[in-house]
Amino acid sequence: MNENTLVQEFLEVLRKAPKVALFSHVSPDGDCLGSMLAIGLALEKMGKEVLFYNPNLVPSNLMFLPGSSRISQQLPDPQPETLVFVDCTDLGRVNLLTSDISKVSTILNLDHHISNQHFGHINWVDAQASAVGELALTLINLLGAEIDSDIATNLYTAIVTDSGCFQYGNTTAQTHRLTAELLDLGIDLVSIHHNIFDQKPLSQIKLLQYALNGLEIHAEGQLALMTLTLEDFQKSGAEQELSEGLVNHARSIVGVEAAVLLKEAGPLEIKAGLRSNLWLNVNEIATKFGGGGHNRAAGCTFRVPIEDAKQSIVSTIGEALRIGRNY
Amino acid sequence: MNENTLVQEFLEVLRKAPKVALFSHVSPDGDCLGSMLAIGLALEKMGKEVLFYNPNLVPSNLMFLPGSSRISQQLPDPQPETLVFVDCTDLGRVNLLTSDISKVSTILNLDHHISNQHFGHINWVDAQASAVGELALTLINLLGAEIDSDIATNLYTAIVTDSGCFQYGNTTAQTHRLTAELLDLGIDLVSIHHNIFDQKPLSQIKLLQYALNGLEIHAEGQLALMTLTLEDFQKSGAEQELSEGLVNHARSIVGVEAAVLLKEAGPLEIKAGLRSNLWLNVNEIATKFGGGGHNRAAGCTFRVPIEDAKQSIVSTIGEALRIGRNY
Repeated sequence: MNENTLVQEFLEVLRKAPKVALFSHVSPDGDCLGSMLAIGLALEKMGKEVLFYNPNLVPSNLMFLPGSSRISQQLPDPQPETLVFVDCTDLGRVNLLTSDISKVSTILNLDHHISNQHFGHINWVDAQASAVGELALTLINLLGAEIDSDIATNLYTAIVTDSGCFQYGNTTAQTHRLTAELLDLGIDLVSIHHNIFDQKPLSQIKLLQYALNGLEIHAEGQLALMTLTLEDFQKSGAEQELSEGLVNHARSIVGVEAAVLLKEAGPLEIKAGLRSNLWLNVNEIATKFGGGGHNRAAGCTFRVPIEDAKQSIVSTIGEALRIGRNY
Repeated sequence: MNENTLVQEFLEVLRKAPKVALFSHVSPDGDCLGSMLAIGLALEKMGKEVLFYNPNLVPSNLMFLPGSSRISQQLPDPQPETLVFVDCTDLGRVNLLTSDISKVSTILNLDHHISNQHFGHINWVDAQASAVGELALTLINLLGAEIDSDIATNLYTAIVTDSGCFQYGNTTAQTHRLTAELLDLGIDLVSIHHNIFDQKPLSQIKLLQYALNGLEIHAEGQLALMTLTLEDFQKSGAEQELSEGLVNHARSIVGVEAAVLLKEAGPLEIKAGLRSNLWLNVNEIATKFGGGGHNRAAGCTFRVPIEDAKQSIVSTIGEALRIGRNY
């Protein structure tokens, strides 16, 4: 099936469906929720009945998304015939098994992950898109549904979160062109950004404080390392997930090629988040310790005391930086 | 002169000029340098001789801009007949007096500040543009000069810095459309962002650490306040300017409406940076203490010990937040 036929069939199923259930992945983010809500609200404008499903609660900084209060943690029962999966590589991302899906359903799979398992009956997977939000806007345009400011707000949030405010390498000219369309519709940029990005729990700011208090520079300034102990998490009152992204403060220091955040998830359970800026392959370093990831962002777990984990990672990365090439 | 005639005359002067000197403002930023370099490199492609002037040195995180090493801190002597001022509200922004400009020169003034003094012979001032970079790209397109990746890199930097990575309220659909044009030309997004944003001196990270160590929450969570003493600056080795932007960490805490950074610039010289998120008019609060600024970002200076300054600002902002309306 060529791309054009595929999109036409995708549209055809949606146009004919009187009732649609939409699904998005566990640990929901701005892209999966914004894209799912935008498509659902557009389908409602076309007179269809729409149900939204996510296995988890909506994160507090995304509760402003129009329609988000309608997302249910209960699977639709009975299932409508038309199911749309948004931003999901496979059914496992929605905590579902094949047996959870009714045999008579048509599964539409809309995603931008190159690793997508093509588990749907029609799989619109475009790995060139910075966010599923790009595909969702194209889809809604093709359906001919009116895009109001609620839909535009959802789509903008999808794109701005998955493209890292247009900073990540997945951002393309098309990303900006589609975003321009959304701005033409008159969304409130300042309020959206405030809602998404300025809702940090105080405990997360305290975690940053403790991480900076433990900042160490190694390898003649090329390696910056931060540690967070169980005590730091207890004192700050922060959950483990709130340490997400803190490693970027170490990565942003001038001259730093590799940055590491070591966090104590439990006694003898040290999780290492590794980042590099320009050339070091941290995936290979993480793999050496039983982990993995991408070339510039990877992770691994050490089953040793935190001081021993620190020594291992500093000496391994230090050596890789010293010889100036990848492992 | 209507807008169209104005732009045509602006173009005409540039087309006829064999030699052009370009000027950008003190404390140079990505927009003034990127826009100036882009226009100059484009004029060179048209066979013109070009000189670049800035009163200050290029900041280290902008030294990657193609052509930046050619920016001189010496005024051109002799002055060419055609002078282009980029991103400057008035001659004072370039540390110049009217008497510094040759009587026979034609001054072209390209800017996006609403407060521009229209000091040129032709003044292309568009306050709708998020960055002069938008106007520079339009100008180069109208001149018909080829935009290579060096020029595109300069223009992208201009736009991304002055629009705050497309987050500020000055960002428009046109901002994104012009950016799409630049991405079509194949610029290296990841490398540009790394060069601009990931070059923080270690001393700046230490300053953040000290600021967070002194974080206080007042007014039932609506006011977040950080202080930096002379000792903090000494211990970190950071210059005063490096505290720029740190107040945003306080502003980004959930529930916070007003954020303050108090810094000791000297004995009995306490500078307060004030920010608000949604409604508090911090300009009016700063004005009360002899300062000023914008509704959401303002500043003032206290000539008292830092503890007294803190008490004044906490009680004044606390009261404004309590009564829930602007001063």
